[in-house]
Amino acid sequence: MAKLNFASDYTQGAHPAILKALADTNFETSAGYGTDEYCEAARRKIRAACGCENAAVWFVSGGTQANLTVIDALLRPWEGVLSADTGHIGGHEAGAIELTGHKVLTVPHKNGKLTADAAEAFAKNYFGNANREHMVCPGVIYISQPTEYGTLYTLKELTALRKVCDEFGLKLYLDGARLAYALGSEQNDVTLPDLARLCDVFYIGGTKCGALLGEAIVIPDPALLPRFFTQMKQHGALLAKGRVLGLQFDALFTDGLYLSLGKNAVRRAKEMVNLFTAHGYKEFCPRETNQVFLLLEDRQYAALSERIVMSFWEKPDDAHTAVRIAASWATTAEELHALTKALTNREQ
Amino acid sequence: MAKLNFASDYTQGAHPAILKALADTNFETSAGYGTDEYCEAARRKIRAACGCENAAVWFVSGGTQANLTVIDALLRPWEGVLSADTGHIGGHEAGAIELTGHKVLTVPHKNGKLTADAAEAFAKNYFGNANREHMVCPGVIYISQPTEYGTLYTLKELTALRKVCDEFGLKLYLDGARLAYALGSEQNDVTLPDLARLCDVFYIGGTKCGALLGEAIVIPDPALLPRFFTQMKQHGALLAKGRVLGLQFDALFTDGLYLSLGKNAVRRAKEMVNLFTAHGYKEFCPRETNQVFLLLEDRQYAALSERIVMSFWEKPDDAHTAVRIAASWATTAEELHALTKALTNREQ
Amino acid sequence: MAKLNFASDYTQGAHPAILKALADTNFETSAGYGTDEYCEAARRKIRAACGCENAAVWFVSGGTQANLTVIDALLRPWEGVLSADTGHIGGHEAGAIELTGHKVLTVPHKNGKLTADAAEAFAKNYFGNANREHMVCPGVIYISQPTEYGTLYTLKELTALRKVCDEFGLKLYLDGARLAYALGSEQNDVTLPDLARLCDVFYIGGTKCGALLGEAIVIPDPALLPRFFTQMKQHGALLAKGRVLGLQFDALFTDGLYLSLGKNAVRRAKEMVNLFTAHGYKEFCPRETNQVFLLLEDRQYAALSERIVMSFWEKPDDAHTAVRIAASWATTAEELHALTKALTNREQ
Amino acid sequence: MAKLNFASDYTQGAHPAILKALADTNFETSAGYGTDEYCEAARRKIRAACGCENAAVWFVSGGTQANLTVIDALLRPWEGVLSADTGHIGGHEAGAIELTGHKVLTVPHKNGKLTADAAEAFAKNYFGNANREHMVCPGVIYISQPTEYGTLYTLKELTALRKVCDEFGLKLYLDGARLAYALGSEQNDVTLPDLARLCDVFYIGGTKCGALLGEAIVIPDPALLPRFFTQMKQHGALLAKGRVLGLQFDALFTDGLYLSLGKNAVRRAKEMVNLFTAHGYKEFCPRETNQVFLLLEDRQYAALSERIVMSFWEKPDDAHTAVRIAASWATTAEELHALTKALTNREQ
Repeated sequence: MAKLNFASDYTQGAHPAILKALADTNFETSAGYGTDEYCEAARRKIRAACGCENAAVWFVSGGTQANLTVIDALLRPWEGVLSADTGHIGGHEAGAIELTGHKVLTVPHKNGKLTADAAEAFAKNYFGNANREHMVCPGVIYISQPTEYGTLYTLKELTALRKVCDEFGLKLYLDGARLAYALGSEQNDVTLPDLARLCDVFYIGGTKCGALLGEAIVIPDPALLPRFFTQMKQHGALLAKGRVLGLQFDALFTDGLYLSLGKNAVRRAKEMVNLFTAHGYKEFCPRETNQVFLLLEDRQYAALSERIVMSFWEKPDDAHTAVRIAASWATTAEELHALTKALTNREQ
Repeated sequence: MAKLNFASDYTQGAHPAILKALADTNFETSAGYGTDEYCEAARRKIRAACGCENAAVWFVSGGTQANLTVIDALLRPWEGVLSADTGHIGGHEAGAIELTGHKVLTVPHKNGKLTADAAEAFAKNYFGNANREHMVCPGVIYISQPTEYGTLYTLKELTALRKVCDEFGLKLYLDGARLAYALGSEQNDVTLPDLARLCDVFYIGGTKCGALLGEAIVIPDPALLPRFFTQMKQHGALLAKGRVLGLQFDALFTDGLYLSLGKNAVRRAKEMVNLFTAHGYKEFCPRETNQVFLLLEDRQYAALSERIVMSFWEKPDDAHTAVRIAASWATTAEELHALTKALTNREQ
Repeated sequence: MAKLNFASDYTQGAHPAILKALADTNFETSAGYGTDEYCEAARRKIRAACGCENAAVWFVSGGTQANLTVIDALLRPWEGVLSADTGHIGGHEAGAIELTGHKVLTVPHKNGKLTADAAEAFAKNYFGNANREHMVCPGVIYISQPTEYGTLYTLKELTALRKVCDEFGLKLYLDGARLAYALGSEQNDVTLPDLARLCDVFYIGGTKCGALLGEAIVIPDPALLPRFFTQMKQHGALLAKGRVLGLQFDALFTDGLYLSLGKNAVRRAKEMVNLFTAHGYKEFCPRETNQVFLLLEDRQYAALSERIVMSFWEKPDDAHTAVRIAASWATTAEELHALTKALTNREQ
Repeated sequence: MAKLNFASDYTQGAHPAILKALADTNFETSAGYGTDEYCEAARRKIRAACGCENAAVWFVSGGTQANLTVIDALLRPWEGVLSADTGHIGGHEAGAIELTGHKVLTVPHKNGKLTADAAEAFAKNYFGNANREHMVCPGVIYISQPTEYGTLYTLKELTALRKVCDEFGLKLYLDGARLAYALGSEQNDVTLPDLARLCDVFYIGGTKCGALLGEAIVIPDPALLPRFFTQMKQHGALLAKGRVLGLQFDALFTDGLYLSLGKNAVRRAKEMVNLFTAHGYKEFCPRETNQVFLLLEDRQYAALSERIVMSFWEKPDDAHTAVRIAASWATTAEELHALTKALTNREQ
């Protein structure tokens, strides 16, 4: 029997509506570099969903690409980007931000989040420091929604971060690689229009939320980054056949598909937690979205690994292992049944 | 009636075999970042086609991304890349190479090509110059096959360039954005195994040759770039859902599809030239692959533009316009008939 | 007998007034990083000489350092710097500009100069090009006064370049590595106040004009580069013991020393030309400042090289060599007498 | 009465032997870019002092310049530099390392030092991490001797760091901005030959140790950085009039001057500590070299500041301020007497 694969939310292809759109339009001709009608349609729908009619919307192939292109474009040469120490850009993008010439400044996270207090303290320390001209100036605040730990910023928390940005002249950039799973969470109170209102730039993740690939970068005020097209080109982020990304976001933003994919994953993740805890497993941190973090005894880890593909997360101590399992847009009731069996069998 | 669109070879989607492969495997789960079985299958087939069993093969989303990642990886910090002055990296990639910190050194082209003589003269001048330590050292020779003018390097020309590289310790990198149309040309005498033998790195273009997107970078001796995976990540070139690219190249390198797509385009381009010349139009430069360059009187240009979407190329003088039309993997006999009609009608 | 060394204008130490200033103040204590009173005094004097009371003035150790720091600071990420193809930044700074991520765009020079016509044509071609978003945008015009060929921009020529800058939104940056020799030329009609009025940034060269080392960067409108101090630091251009540079420019701008050093060199260069032409040698290009370019038969070159240290410039053909000899702030009547002897003896 | 200025060790000019050397040779002519005889003489003496006859020795104008040029040259594109979190490159160089495209990786310091244990743990974690290809690879270990807290690595500690480097294939780079004060410390057991044996690159500080400016970069095995000259040029670190730096290091390494300057400062710092503690002040951390760190009540800080210029260091709590005072190569017995008076008067 094949193992159950819950390692991540990008293990499968794309939602069938996307495959259908690609097939249906396959032999139509269109202009290149994101100037085609499908990109335009996707832009219109995303703007509508964000309640932001003037937003610039650009499509790139992946999350690191989005992060490095946006952050490099937002920062002035003497600035760095402030992130929680758990931020994806700091530890898991191989130094992509530094390769653009900018430092990732870090403060300790709180449940995977960068708090407004921590950001304010950092900014105060910098702007109040007599030696600040010899130091890296914070220019952008980087957050991810949901965070690397699957937690969610509340509207109140986001508003507080925005206030810090306004006070110190910083930009707010939100990495939405898994944004569908934030929007689909029962605990979420932050909408797309909230993001468009509070962030300077954010991206709506496709790769991990039902697309073959692609992320949609939203710039509510296009005047902020007047030459972003060229900056994408410079970073190799501009696809010649841009329609491939446009078609996908067009499909994802038709009839609420993006949100419903998010909701499915969250519901399945909730069921997973229930199953695991019912079988005596412990959560490593409380689930809020589609990612479930478990704290396993090493013995449990070995046994479960024979039946389920999980992601190693960290070793909090010598006897335990923290793992991540993820539900996705594609997770089915059948897979949950199979998981039930896998957990039950284990105990026999 | 819709205009005929011959503006480029990336105006349509993908070969149906690719869409089928995506659909057939859609709900299978696979590992991320190009470590999946479809990427592996594509690698095996590409290695076999290149007669190079040890080659490293990596997939990225586009041509500029391939160029900047490879060239940055090949160059040492004090080196620049030598290109014909018509090279894509010099004028049409918005300074992407310079953004990685390296200069594009240029010599005048000959039919769109960088000749071995010009490369040798440049290298001799550098290495023989008493002030060379204050100058940019050539480290990589960049060529494209076919060139930006649709012309082809012969095996003899490529061998001569390799010899220059060996003499001066340079690397040879070949941009194969439209490689299918080189391989499919009746005038071509350079095979994939030749490229694997003569180049340090080259890429096999997908985006313009029948894929939705994607280019396959081939490094015949993987020891040359031992950490290329991480360097791709740093440049945002590594896709999480790598299978999307692997599946496409797996399909393109099954049953000779890549070559046959190239041949189709070349045959159609040949027919186009015949049609245009039969109707009194002049070629701007002789066709060798899938791109046709016409020298139009401005009056002709205006008239034709009402029926056919072409690419503006340049204005050689006040009364004429050079345009490019391209046949592609997808160009059909029906389109050629329609073109016949369009040209005939024009004369009525 | 030691050879006469006319290889360059930086072969000797510093004007004695500079050594005296260093010795007189040696055990005074002062603040670091250019915040000391000597830097302030130098700034006041330079501002006065430029008729520009609000100018920011910064001191760095050398010309390439000045060029890369200023140009990187002036350019936006998608921009490149436009230069004559003979510009120092293009060929003789080892790719320092590209290392900051920017392309050096070139047009053919005219007597070592970038003409307003050439700059305008380049800008028109870029801003009128439908594909410009895929190309490097010109952002700064780089010129040197005197040029690499020792020629001078006239006030009319500079004014025309400024007009092109204004028309297309470009910045004008002037490299004044040998500015004293421009200011001291009998053919010059461009004053420091003219430079402050017409340039966005320029630098007043010290290293080649009588200082031990150092260049003074002048930014007439400091708001243009609000964090230049930090950008200097980032590029390693900020000296801890900044007074060393401040003291030298304080001395150079006291009692007209800088101008008088320039005049001395120009006078001596004129005498050199007279001597050489009287002995039958030909100029390679007409002298305007302190540099003399001679076109020697290779036989002459070999013979002269036994008595005089010159700088090889280029080989215009197989039988001739162009050389540069330079008079400097320190060139004396005695050296001219010795040169007379050297030329006369040669003929015996 | 002028305040006593103990703010730093770079507040004054240069040792008189340096001024004399500059004056004595002022009108001699010499070749540029560090190829002159004075640079050569300095190189010979430094090689002899380091017991390393083949070392490459290069001179640059300042410490940040040395750090960024060396670290950028040592690191491969996918690598970062590991430093204690108190390292100068991390917090006080305005992101200069990141501007070269590399991340500064940090571990918590111990008395200002990066311990071999911490370095080993970091390397083990990286090289043992399954996701390491997505992370920044440590490539160079950066340490400073003395450290930013004036503490010293012992020979045993340095040897242990070297062992970690050898085990994991890392390079060891030592920032010797204040190296004279390490060498001159009564607690030091690390000699220049030890550094040449244990480090891949280190620099001997001039700016803070008696020179007008300048640092001497020592590369024991020149094959390690074969094109360092050009890399200096690219970073603007190459001085045209290189003799200015060569002459100074020639003087500093004649008759043991460098060591004796270090010893003077250390002796004076020791006297300072004795004076302050005799007057009831507390050390913030124990003095090992020329820098004295005091923990002052804010009231004491205010009172002392009226008589003595000190450097603010940090505020450990609301009621106290940590300050740094520094003795230097130039600190005299008279200044110590004046300090005695200043402290005594304060109590009246």
